[in-house]
Amino acid sequence: MDILLFAIFLAACFGAGATGAMFPTGEWYQRLNKPSWTPPNWAFPIMWTSIYLLIAFAGSRVAGLPGSEYAMGFWAMQIAFNALWTPVFFGLRKLRGALPVMACLWVAVLGATITHFQLDFIAGLAFVPYLIWVTIAGALNLAVARLNPNEPELRPADI
Amino acid sequence: MDILLFAIFLAACFGAGATGAMFPTGEWYQRLNKPSWTPPNWAFPIMWTSIYLLIAFAGSRVAGLPGSEYAMGFWAMQIAFNALWTPVFFGLRKLRGALPVMACLWVAVLGATITHFQLDFIAGLAFVPYLIWVTIAGALNLAVARLNPNEPELRPADI
Repeated sequence: MDILLFAIFLAACFGAGATGAMFPTGEWYQRLNKPSWTPPNWAFPIMWTSIYLLIAFAGSRVAGLPGSEYAMGFWAMQIAFNALWTPVFFGLRKLRGALPVMACLWVAVLGATITHFQLDFIAGLAFVPYLIWVTIAGALNLAVARLNPNEPELRPADI
Repeated sequence: MDILLFAIFLAACFGAGATGAMFPTGEWYQRLNKPSWTPPNWAFPIMWTSIYLLIAFAGSRVAGLPGSEYAMGFWAMQIAFNALWTPVFFGLRKLRGALPVMACLWVAVLGATITHFQLDFIAGLAFVPYLIWVTIAGALNLAVARLNPNEPELRPADI
């Protein structure tokens, strides 16, 4: 494995993951109505750290391979929407507005999983936990939006 | 040019650029002390739209080429930090906290520019306006942080 290349992909993940430190879950999230199957708070940083390590590994395995153009396009697309979701949900409290962001993220992760599998079985496997987790996160976002229909959004001008 | 591949890279740019619509410049930005050479407000959306089109074009030209692994790593890294900067600066008003984000973005854009040039002269050229613009944006961020030393940040709990 090319460690420097892995580090560059991991830096991209760090940029996206930094939104979680900048816009952390706090009292506001605690008091939202959530479904019974909501994962416990401690699961989120563990899952995201694992996912970021796995997809940086996957990206550095397939980058530059012949036919890797779609895998790289989807890799870039997923990290952009990954970075966008947290400020929209936790920063602006747009419970419904975060759903199209989550939908784009899900499509990008599905595309990345398929295209990584086509190039390299291990790289494809490394994307599977991410695909499962964004499916759960998307269902949670939808459930929270439904269970808190009157939760006020913050407009940027209010911030 | 592969239009679908271009569209995927452009979707990544759309994800990053959506932060500009979510966290727009408003009254707060207007009343900040800014240096005399601050670009006019109308220049920002024009520059960013042009840059996003150019880098989506560049990414779709070099993706999958032999030796494109670092170009793709830097492409992914720049879009993640691009998406991160706006919520940190305009959402949390971290004028100084946005500087390390801008530094990471600048390094990623420099790396992308060099590695795209190595693969394809036109793709490298397409990154040059971006490199110039993040240099200006970084200098502006630094100047604004210095000219507004007592500007309060927003803690996420305040939002």
